[in-house]
Amino acid sequence: MSLIEALNWRYATKRMNGNKIDPAKLENILEATRLSVSAVGLQPYNIIVIESPELREKIKPIAFNQPQITEASHLLVFAAWDKITEARFDEFIQDVADQRGVTVESLNGFQNYKKNMLSRTDEENYHSAVSQTHIAFGTAVAAAALEHVDATPMGGFNHEALDELLGLKEKGLKSEILLALGHRDESQDWLVGQKKVRRPKEKLFVELA
Amino acid sequence: MSLIEALNWRYATKRMNGNKIDPAKLENILEATRLSVSAVGLQPYNIIVIESPELREKIKPIAFNQPQITEASHLLVFAAWDKITEARFDEFIQDVADQRGVTVESLNGFQNYKKNMLSRTDEENYHSAVSQTHIAFGTAVAAAALEHVDATPMGGFNHEALDELLGLKEKGLKSEILLALGHRDESQDWLVGQKKVRRPKEKLFVELA
Repeated sequence: MSLIEALNWRYATKRMNGNKIDPAKLENILEATRLSVSAVGLQPYNIIVIESPELREKIKPIAFNQPQITEASHLLVFAAWDKITEARFDEFIQDVADQRGVTVESLNGFQNYKKNMLSRTDEENYHSAVSQTHIAFGTAVAAAALEHVDATPMGGFNHEALDELLGLKEKGLKSEILLALGHRDESQDWLVGQKKVRRPKEKLFVELA
Repeated sequence: MSLIEALNWRYATKRMNGNKIDPAKLENILEATRLSVSAVGLQPYNIIVIESPELREKIKPIAFNQPQITEASHLLVFAAWDKITEARFDEFIQDVADQRGVTVESLNGFQNYKKNMLSRTDEENYHSAVSQTHIAFGTAVAAAALEHVDATPMGGFNHEALDELLGLKEKGLKSEILLALGHRDESQDWLVGQKKVRRPKEKLFVELA
């Protein structure tokens, strides 16, 4: 199935049937998300993977009782780093050095990026982390569609309450967007038959000669 | 090719060979991008598609003279809406009504979203538009990789100068990130053989029971 077919197949599933996702498909979705593009490769976010029905019951009221929270197989919480600290960047450079089998000192370019990032305000870096989080999110949605796994993006929830429930603040994280993964319940979902609407290409794209 | 294979194949290409992309592949990349997930379906951004070598020559110094700007086949500029206005939201609701063959009045849910969005500050809505822009960007990168088209994300450029050159401000747009599309020049690209580094899964994912 092509990506276009997959994206036409998917929709923001409103009701799921509680069936579990094939573990190999979940693994593929997470691996594709891990391989997402990210500026400098920093990936300044974490993704919380929640299967526990009990924990999802607690999240549900925080997310306006949207039924997919508990009807899903897994819930992903995409959480941005609240700030870029020197320790976080150094750990990243160390990872690059380890994975490439080179010394930290040889990675001058990354040291320059670090200096550049640390010269910005925490708020600027947070906004940039939020952008990177959404690139990964876009990748995850594409990956799920290609695996024929339904996925519901949810931005409507009490971010502070969720951060508190999951202990994200102490981890230096802020929840940005949720992705419920599971399988559609066609018998109960009013949206399943509705035509997908996207902006027409002549409005979305601007061709400059 | 699976998405995982495609994402492992791709890298932030530093040098391109000037060859044009197959038009059908470009069409597929743009169509997949158009089908991106977006909150409420609003897609509060535009994507500028630039083929003109002359225009790309003018952009190059604005983007630190990165050679891919002119060595690419096409340059995409992902630009977020600077604010969500009533007129923009109304045009969107009209598009939904037209595409679904229903009346604007029957789309109550969208009217509520509109009220909600217009009650927020322009800055909040702009940040939300930036997030949505990056979801589309993530989709575009995945789509390009699946088409075996090289793609270089570029965040390093003078945003205000580019907005001015392309007349984006008058269109209510702000350039966020560039994507050069083309074909790698393996003979000149120092990055082509380097190991792709991503955060290890045990660091990126947090499994909560």
